[in-house]
Amino acid sequence: MNKPKEPSNHRTIERVLSGMRPTGRLHLGNYHGALQNWVKLQNDYECLFFVADWHCLTTDYADPKDIRGNAENMLIDWLACGLDPKKCTFFVQSWLKVHAELHLLLSMMTPLSWLERVPSYKEIRQQLTDRDLSTYGFLGYPMLMTADIIAYNANRVPVGEDQVAHIELSREVVRRFNFLYKKEVFVEPKPLLTQTPKVPGLDGRKMSKSYNNCIYIYDTKEEVRKKIMPAITDPARKRREDPGHPEVCIIHDYHKLYSSAEVCAWCEDGCRTAKIGCVDCKKKLLEGMDAFWDPIREKRAEIAKHPEQVWEIAKSGSEVAKILAETTMEKVREVMHLKY
Amino acid sequence: MNKPKEPSNHRTIERVLSGMRPTGRLHLGNYHGALQNWVKLQNDYECLFFVADWHCLTTDYADPKDIRGNAENMLIDWLACGLDPKKCTFFVQSWLKVHAELHLLLSMMTPLSWLERVPSYKEIRQQLTDRDLSTYGFLGYPMLMTADIIAYNANRVPVGEDQVAHIELSREVVRRFNFLYKKEVFVEPKPLLTQTPKVPGLDGRKMSKSYNNCIYIYDTKEEVRKKIMPAITDPARKRREDPGHPEVCIIHDYHKLYSSAEVCAWCEDGCRTAKIGCVDCKKKLLEGMDAFWDPIREKRAEIAKHPEQVWEIAKSGSEVAKILAETTMEKVREVMHLKY
Repeated sequence: MNKPKEPSNHRTIERVLSGMRPTGRLHLGNYHGALQNWVKLQNDYECLFFVADWHCLTTDYADPKDIRGNAENMLIDWLACGLDPKKCTFFVQSWLKVHAELHLLLSMMTPLSWLERVPSYKEIRQQLTDRDLSTYGFLGYPMLMTADIIAYNANRVPVGEDQVAHIELSREVVRRFNFLYKKEVFVEPKPLLTQTPKVPGLDGRKMSKSYNNCIYIYDTKEEVRKKIMPAITDPARKRREDPGHPEVCIIHDYHKLYSSAEVCAWCEDGCRTAKIGCVDCKKKLLEGMDAFWDPIREKRAEIAKHPEQVWEIAKSGSEVAKILAETTMEKVREVMHLKY
Repeated sequence: MNKPKEPSNHRTIERVLSGMRPTGRLHLGNYHGALQNWVKLQNDYECLFFVADWHCLTTDYADPKDIRGNAENMLIDWLACGLDPKKCTFFVQSWLKVHAELHLLLSMMTPLSWLERVPSYKEIRQQLTDRDLSTYGFLGYPMLMTADIIAYNANRVPVGEDQVAHIELSREVVRRFNFLYKKEVFVEPKPLLTQTPKVPGLDGRKMSKSYNNCIYIYDTKEEVRKKIMPAITDPARKRREDPGHPEVCIIHDYHKLYSSAEVCAWCEDGCRTAKIGCVDCKKKLLEGMDAFWDPIREKRAEIAKHPEQVWEIAKSGSEVAKILAETTMEKVREVMHLKY
């Protein structure tokens, strides 16, 4: 399959690394927020994408039973949505013990205060009040993330604005490591900022499993219809003859993702002038969604028939990743005088 | 060499695990405080002794260059002092990546507060003021220690009173793990409290490399003589004819380790009545020390001729340890749903 490339700090093609936590089914937010971008990136970069199963444990340590199933579904979604193992490398984090080794080594030289000041640390703890996140591992997760990235000397990490602080931490850790051990073992990863479209959940809030407002990649045509048809639109448009306001309507946001410019214009105009009703608008949306998702659903169904092949791809990819990470780790062990 | 025994929670012989950090040459404090006891334990228990090289990094991360040399010397000392690879298993921590993996997994479920309240955490930070110990790894070292112990399901850990709190932490972690994952994967390790003799340093303080008051196992006969002869004794005994107080004299403490009951009595009486001088007393001590250490020194010199054989022993032992730890880790991955 895909051959490991000799890792170098002077690559002509930059290396991109990104992972997803298999905490549940992938939804349209995950697709348009990350996966769709990955599919583009695989053409322009040397890409490594991984199942961040150990990261799941930072929040789900008390109930990890679904990790395997979620990982499998995630891999199927990746393939169905167009990630191509001939163009990029998939791997499973927990299969690569070097992530744990590097995590341990970095822990020795990473100041506690650097981790305590990562903005998301307090935020997520405040959000997920249903579980106890005062654990050592939860505090350390940006350092595990750092290990994930720099084990491969990835140059670029696709992130949203809210995650730039994590990459900043990784860069600081790299600088400290290279300074302490007097060698440019690691390259400083840079964020690859990407504009992602707005994908609200069915209730207008952020699309999130915990809000129960998701459309999943896995959903059938019929399930999508059942979710879209009763979805709230413009609350001010109480009767069919009231003009609507597309800018506050999630269906309008979805149109922008799935409908042509003409259809978008037709819907927007029809809504504002009350020429069309919400049902007409939603039916048009479903046409666009089906046109977009039907081929993916078909591909997904095909792939899902042979989950063992999906794991095979992850296995081959993990072997490639192992060679790359081991090359870095050999240098790490050498400069830390742990090679004997 | 030594065959791995099937690990079981119902062993007839208890398993003992202990490690030493290769931070420098072993001195008499290390010998009488730990190693001598290990030599006894290997006859009564299934013993695993390891080079805790990753643990070195908790305090020495900024300057790890001597770890390899120290590890080699430590292994030579172990063998010279009577640890027998036919009776016990030696291994090197950093060769067993499972320690890092288990460390990471435990981190996910170990409350930060449990680590913050370990008594030695603040103490050591206050003692070692010459370096920055506000690191993530330094806070986590009792958890790494826990991983070391429970990866082998060791029943007993030889410790001094001051380290009982660490074993208590390990027991808590085990209980939490077994409770969360609903299976008795780990056994709770128990401390194996051992009475150790008093081995003061040459200046009367605790024998410690950082105080520069050590007699090393590695020291030659002549070096020991050069250290003992000028050593301070009873400061109140200013002249030869003043009676001395053996209870405040380090030479008296050393006599108890190396001289017969008769010689001890002769020295004590001679000192109290000023019948003998400190030089006489020290010469007698050196006779006893040489009788004790000469055979060990000889054995040490022999072993040191072939350091590659020493590493071979560590290598074979590490293979044995790997099988044992992997057996535990397979169960860990299973109950944490990370086996796929």
